[in-house]
Amino acid sequence: MDLLSTLRAAVGADAVLTDPDVTAAYRRDMMPLAPYGEPLAVVLPTSTEQVQAVVRACAEHRTPIVPRGAGSGLSGAANAIDGCVVLALTRMNRILEIDPDNRLAVVEPGVVNLDLRDAVEKHGLFYPPDPSSYDWCTIGGNVSTNAGGLCCVKYGVTTDAILGLEVVLADGELLRTGRRTVKGVAGYDLTKLFIGSEGTLGVVTQATLALRPLPQAPGTTVAAFPSIVAAGAAVSRIVREGIVPSLMEIMDAASIEAVEAHLNTEVGAGRGSAALLICQSDSGREAARRELAAIEQVCADSGADLVHTTFDLAEGRMLLTARRAVLMALEVYGAWMTDDVCVPRTRIAELIAGCELISAEVGLRIAVVGHAGDGNMHPTIVYDPTSADEFARAQRAFDDILALGLSLGGTVTGEHGIGKVKREWLANEIGPVGLRTHRAIKAALDPGNLFNPGSMFSPAPAASSPDAP
Amino acid sequence: MDLLSTLRAAVGADAVLTDPDVTAAYRRDMMPLAPYGEPLAVVLPTSTEQVQAVVRACAEHRTPIVPRGAGSGLSGAANAIDGCVVLALTRMNRILEIDPDNRLAVVEPGVVNLDLRDAVEKHGLFYPPDPSSYDWCTIGGNVSTNAGGLCCVKYGVTTDAILGLEVVLADGELLRTGRRTVKGVAGYDLTKLFIGSEGTLGVVTQATLALRPLPQAPGTTVAAFPSIVAAGAAVSRIVREGIVPSLMEIMDAASIEAVEAHLNTEVGAGRGSAALLICQSDSGREAARRELAAIEQVCADSGADLVHTTFDLAEGRMLLTARRAVLMALEVYGAWMTDDVCVPRTRIAELIAGCELISAEVGLRIAVVGHAGDGNMHPTIVYDPTSADEFARAQRAFDDILALGLSLGGTVTGEHGIGKVKREWLANEIGPVGLRTHRAIKAALDPGNLFNPGSMFSPAPAASSPDAP
Repeated sequence: MDLLSTLRAAVGADAVLTDPDVTAAYRRDMMPLAPYGEPLAVVLPTSTEQVQAVVRACAEHRTPIVPRGAGSGLSGAANAIDGCVVLALTRMNRILEIDPDNRLAVVEPGVVNLDLRDAVEKHGLFYPPDPSSYDWCTIGGNVSTNAGGLCCVKYGVTTDAILGLEVVLADGELLRTGRRTVKGVAGYDLTKLFIGSEGTLGVVTQATLALRPLPQAPGTTVAAFPSIVAAGAAVSRIVREGIVPSLMEIMDAASIEAVEAHLNTEVGAGRGSAALLICQSDSGREAARRELAAIEQVCADSGADLVHTTFDLAEGRMLLTARRAVLMALEVYGAWMTDDVCVPRTRIAELIAGCELISAEVGLRIAVVGHAGDGNMHPTIVYDPTSADEFARAQRAFDDILALGLSLGGTVTGEHGIGKVKREWLANEIGPVGLRTHRAIKAALDPGNLFNPGSMFSPAPAASSPDAP
Repeated sequence: MDLLSTLRAAVGADAVLTDPDVTAAYRRDMMPLAPYGEPLAVVLPTSTEQVQAVVRACAEHRTPIVPRGAGSGLSGAANAIDGCVVLALTRMNRILEIDPDNRLAVVEPGVVNLDLRDAVEKHGLFYPPDPSSYDWCTIGGNVSTNAGGLCCVKYGVTTDAILGLEVVLADGELLRTGRRTVKGVAGYDLTKLFIGSEGTLGVVTQATLALRPLPQAPGTTVAAFPSIVAAGAAVSRIVREGIVPSLMEIMDAASIEAVEAHLNTEVGAGRGSAALLICQSDSGREAARRELAAIEQVCADSGADLVHTTFDLAEGRMLLTARRAVLMALEVYGAWMTDDVCVPRTRIAELIAGCELISAEVGLRIAVVGHAGDGNMHPTIVYDPTSADEFARAQRAFDDILALGLSLGGTVTGEHGIGKVKREWLANEIGPVGLRTHRAIKAALDPGNLFNPGSMFSPAPAASSPDAP
């Protein structure tokens, strides 16, 4: 039987898509720089057994599998390669269990992050990881990329919220990792090895999640600074003084300017602020007041032009709107590609200053927004998508920002991943011994290079070009 | 050149111990059930380069290496096997860096946990993992076992506090994993793969640690219960109500009785309490008062005979003394071996009740103490070390407790590890696919089975018997 017939027998004919007009929607994620190809088929399983059957069939036919969730990724990790089977887990979207007494949930990979958040909130529980795409990204994608978000400064990233996984391996066998208990050290931590492996080691078909008590409604402090050095100093002092806000975001002048134009309102201090810091504390009334008062003081001492704190929820949400609106605000000026570097928190100001220089060098607008609380910055480059020259300059800026992040003691990806867009940079960061170790583990678990070849560190497969005009 | 000469050339003659009277102190850890053998030599390197030279020499001579720290382990993971080189990292004990502005430290593996705690406390910082042996265990050992402690309920375990590692691999090459930034997803999470790998994948020669702000001085609540069911119900309700104490320990009747006899004071409610719950909150004055008041209420509602809260630090410390004194108190009755299972927090009462049954069946005293906040229980079996029969019954109880833990949805080790004493139980818990995956990773990173053969899941090497009389 040929592969397509086997796949149709395994999952049903309506769950195997081959019409290029239909499969086009499954060819790529949100990263314009990453190459993508033409899949043989897109398969939409509804059970673990179906995933096993698909994996076995593809293994037999030596056809690569690219697992994917909603496609909100920003590294091309879920991009199709020519002739592959795209295994889209979006129909496996059931919340199988919520156990409030043990603060855990068991879910399929296609559950949308926001749907999970809403479901557990009814039990007074909280699933922390909140990538910006939380209203459409899936838990499976979050697991595969070890997704972060705005809450990480206090609550950590996806790997901190996963107790165990069910993974279909390259031979179609089902591996169960981890446990349902809070602690456990029985064997290697395979759970955390699969988290962030970007679909290169297996297909996650189930996850057991550790939940937290729902935090208190947050208070919000906004501070506008006349220089990024002053804002960076405030961040360092907040860290040093032992304050742990539940959110601490930074916007540079280019972000502020774009958002002010977009929202037609002033979000800085009224005369072109150089940086805006938005902090929240959800520690409960008195503690939040104390924490935000301390943050206000630090900001004032660091030279802020304006500091404002509110415990009004609606106002707090509105203040966060400025931060959340940056990408949309930039679309007025052209297409954007967002970079992702994480630097030591003491080096944030240097990173932003460096991005200003890069912006001047390449002659393109670069707006920096980021999670100041953990040093994870997203410099976002704006370019004209119809100009090959601007695209090339944007690509150059993208790489220059990564080099800058590394030179500041940082990493080339804080939360978006390597995918198909930072493979050389991964090699650069982890060096030959690190690369060899990665290859040894990949070969041990996926000797036929079945899963997501060409992603992360394996040789690039044949694929069409990135979005160059 | 023979191996010993090569080792002496590499680390100096005084750092290669071969006198059996001297090496005896390096043959085993604190677990009486685990087998141990006679090493060829104990080597005490003082630098990463020396570790690399030792690993290369041993690889060339096909001589197994057993890495070890202080030897406080409770699974036999650091026990020597016949003819091996014990690589003791205790002389690599420098704190290389403390960076308060980025809340991190870089240390060598031989640094004693308490020494690190004291050093970072001077900067207002906190290294959470606090195994009971914290005043003599080493960070390297903590990393290798993914050690927990009393703080885990709020602050997590060792893997939650490590940003990156330096590891000498089986070919002597140096692998750097992780990063100095708070977040990072560049490649597989090799850091967390090595954490808890019990010396089977490489030798950790450096660790970069994530520190937290020093918490507030804790308040303490003690509650005595007339039944373990009532105490278990209180734990479940504390979890369900979203309270996260910084410590929540439980002691059963046998523990209370032993400690009361040992300290010659009453720690229960005056007439043979069935269980004692000790909770702390370090959330700061008002929040701690609120949290402990809520815990008091839950305990009273669950039927506690006595509930007492103090914010006096000395009194709080004294109340914790009862918990910390259990093992010493048991020594009056014989030798002890402590087990380590972790169950869902709703099943703690069933585990303790089951241990009472096992105690009756084997005719030996079993005292249960444990970290109620995360379900990690340490049933401790007391036996006469001169009686082969009692030793055999203790062994049976040890295994019966593991079977009970598994049957309650738990794991066979919450924090002590597999080592040489729970190999069959690991296989039992993770199943054939899990085992195959472990073996594939081990073979990929250590194809010659150089590191700690016979530990965790690899075939047992020739070794002398456990401590059977």
